[in-house]
Amino acid sequence: MANLQNGSSKKRLDVVVVGGGLVGSLEALYLAKRGHRVRLYEFREDIRKTPEVRGRSINLALSIRGRTALRDVGLEKHIVESYGIPMYGRRIHRLDGSTYNIPYDANTKQGIYSVGRTYLNSLLLQESESYDNVERFFHHKLIEANLHKGSLTFLKTNTNETVSVTADLIIGADGAYSSVRKAMLKEPLFDFSQKYIEHGYLELCIPADENGGFQMPPNFLHIWPRGEFMMIALPNQDCSWTVTLFMPFIKFKNLDTEEKLLDFFEAYFPDSISLIGRKKLLEDFFGGKPSPLVAIKCRPYNVDNKVLLIGDAAHAVVPFYGQGMNAGFEDCWLLDKLMQKHNDDLSKVLPEFSDTRWEDTFAISDLALYNYVEMRDLVTRPTYLIRKALDDLLSWALPTVWVPLYNSVTFSTMPYSQCVKNRQWQDKILKRAFMILGLSILAGGGYSYKNNNVTSDMILLPIRNIFKKLF
Amino acid sequence: MANLQNGSSKKRLDVVVVGGGLVGSLEALYLAKRGHRVRLYEFREDIRKTPEVRGRSINLALSIRGRTALRDVGLEKHIVESYGIPMYGRRIHRLDGSTYNIPYDANTKQGIYSVGRTYLNSLLLQESESYDNVERFFHHKLIEANLHKGSLTFLKTNTNETVSVTADLIIGADGAYSSVRKAMLKEPLFDFSQKYIEHGYLELCIPADENGGFQMPPNFLHIWPRGEFMMIALPNQDCSWTVTLFMPFIKFKNLDTEEKLLDFFEAYFPDSISLIGRKKLLEDFFGGKPSPLVAIKCRPYNVDNKVLLIGDAAHAVVPFYGQGMNAGFEDCWLLDKLMQKHNDDLSKVLPEFSDTRWEDTFAISDLALYNYVEMRDLVTRPTYLIRKALDDLLSWALPTVWVPLYNSVTFSTMPYSQCVKNRQWQDKILKRAFMILGLSILAGGGYSYKNNNVTSDMILLPIRNIFKKLF
Repeated sequence: MANLQNGSSKKRLDVVVVGGGLVGSLEALYLAKRGHRVRLYEFREDIRKTPEVRGRSINLALSIRGRTALRDVGLEKHIVESYGIPMYGRRIHRLDGSTYNIPYDANTKQGIYSVGRTYLNSLLLQESESYDNVERFFHHKLIEANLHKGSLTFLKTNTNETVSVTADLIIGADGAYSSVRKAMLKEPLFDFSQKYIEHGYLELCIPADENGGFQMPPNFLHIWPRGEFMMIALPNQDCSWTVTLFMPFIKFKNLDTEEKLLDFFEAYFPDSISLIGRKKLLEDFFGGKPSPLVAIKCRPYNVDNKVLLIGDAAHAVVPFYGQGMNAGFEDCWLLDKLMQKHNDDLSKVLPEFSDTRWEDTFAISDLALYNYVEMRDLVTRPTYLIRKALDDLLSWALPTVWVPLYNSVTFSTMPYSQCVKNRQWQDKILKRAFMILGLSILAGGGYSYKNNNVTSDMILLPIRNIFKKLF
Repeated sequence: MANLQNGSSKKRLDVVVVGGGLVGSLEALYLAKRGHRVRLYEFREDIRKTPEVRGRSINLALSIRGRTALRDVGLEKHIVESYGIPMYGRRIHRLDGSTYNIPYDANTKQGIYSVGRTYLNSLLLQESESYDNVERFFHHKLIEANLHKGSLTFLKTNTNETVSVTADLIIGADGAYSSVRKAMLKEPLFDFSQKYIEHGYLELCIPADENGGFQMPPNFLHIWPRGEFMMIALPNQDCSWTVTLFMPFIKFKNLDTEEKLLDFFEAYFPDSISLIGRKKLLEDFFGGKPSPLVAIKCRPYNVDNKVLLIGDAAHAVVPFYGQGMNAGFEDCWLLDKLMQKHNDDLSKVLPEFSDTRWEDTFAISDLALYNYVEMRDLVTRPTYLIRKALDDLLSWALPTVWVPLYNSVTFSTMPYSQCVKNRQWQDKILKRAFMILGLSILAGGGYSYKNNNVTSDMILLPIRNIFKKLF
């Protein structure tokens, strides 16, 4: 059957999307919009029927890449204008409970948006109901895959039946522990790495106050940076906060009594205790256990013209740049642009997606690891604050030329690898500028030294030589 | 049942070794010697009954680490003195067919030994027959594993039955594509990477001459280094040579007609054509297909006190340092030393093996990648030959102090990571020495320049300053 959405001669594809999380549901919308038949398989039950689950991070920071991808399926406006809570900067909590703000963008005042995972996922699934060409199957666990043939076998976890399907295209959007990717591991020349960091995370909660309002200023991402570890808080729509403690596993393990935990919070996060509540702190801390943080890199993302990995399945990153969901959504957006460019010809789209995307996802993966150090440690250091002020000044003076790293990642769709190169270029410029400045001062000093008749070629000559080289 | 080999109170362990290749069979011997019950499961049929198979490398270079491990099970002497063919250096084939030698150790004349995989594997399996406490099971494919419980399920590939076993200790010695490791992938905090290089390999053969003798001098590893690619040859016991062509996949792909292949050999390996034989070259080249080369890194190697990966399953490396088998055999030897040290207490042995071994296997993995560049390219360069001569001279003058990198890896049991640090130290010393030498020459020149009344502080002052810093 040829359903020709845009009047061209392209074939209507039979697509199976594995994974009905954020990225899988968005990808289903994109493919449905293009007129393809989409079957979406999800291991869990329908999230629209599920009460909130502890353990997976429950709120996320939506920034420009995610927004851009939501825009094309008509969902950005609602999320940004009615639902999401804007955060315009970091609010740093000192040990003594006092705070100061570091805006994300001092000049244009842009923000990122705190959104709930369950809400956004439900919205995407709900939106897919408006397309006749999308079918959703929950409780379907992938148990076997023949990727070259495009055939998959699922176990229906509620009835114990197995179902086999074939497709023209299989999208693996089944997350960091992807089953589709597991099948790809056997393919020759498939590079793969999974790397855990030695820190874990545990979620706590600051409830709304007695009037149902926020207990802290809501338009910030709150951080308690403590060097080796940190706590952060993102606002929820019900005026509570999701608080996440990131810390070495060994430190979690050592906090094995209520007394030790309270002593630890008194020492490092004293202002948070009354916000969380002593009883709730103990309950949530000892009721949960720290989750691991993994970074996944692999390539290629495709098998033949049949299978493609996107989202966390292709490139799970640690959460410290707030880019996991955004990078996954950007995959959907980029893939759609390639489908447009190549008129849905998978033999061109899939290899090009894989060849052009990996460098950027590798870059954001490394940036996310680096940003943990920035958030838990560097933000408290004068050198960081000076550089930040300098970046703000330069980007105010030269807004199109000087885009600081955080801004290029968060407020632009510049490819991630380009963001890194851009920063390296900025570092070089600044280093050179500081060197010239320093040498000018030295040379000035040396000149007056010489005019006082105490000549010293040992100082002046090398400086002159360096100047000659520089100009 | 308590079979107390050495009279101590240690428990007799029930061990399952998965993989009856080189490393698995050797490990079975080590464990049997310690008095444990060993069941060895191998997916393939008994290699003692198998005709030689194309595709897997059929000969290997045994060096000191492998020899040391074979010594403790009583097999070194036979292999080195009666069976293996010593190779005392590289014999480089120039484009014009002329050759020159680069000895591995110009001073002590040590060599490495070319051994056949099938012969050595058969010998190890045969040796295990002399232990009542070893059982061997062939045609057993691992299909399910519960690592924490120590239970495994095998499919008997010749009868289609399944068999389940449990053990106190599971040794995963099932190679680069290990099924035991696959089960470990799901364990939290298990770091893993598999990385393919963009080059593949294909095996050819130089037969014995009409009198049944070698067609080339046998006591060398022959190399045809051609920059981006290379061919090597190792001698076999029947006076034939196993020839391996290493080359980018794309180059293999382009050689798609007999004419192109012969042109290619005429251009790059002209002296090899008559040795291999034109007909055999075409047959073997087009009868096979290039195999990929993968490097595997992972950690930890253990799950609880139940499971341990060794050999290629833990750390497959590319073959260019000739250390894959040697590193695997060294695993068995090191593991035995730890079993001795901790009186077979797995709760101490397994974590210590994992914690102390990964750094060395990561080091040999990187060294092996580097050595491809050395073998296919650097060996032809004057800078390499000068450094080699300098290393030979220094290690002759200071044999205990100056051990060149290749020698420390191949002729010593220095931990691999230490070999790398040792080389870095040597590089630093040489760099400093050359700098002093260069500066001395410059200073001497500058001094005579000055004595000719053409003074130039621009040259002399910076040099003097640097001298001051150095001493």
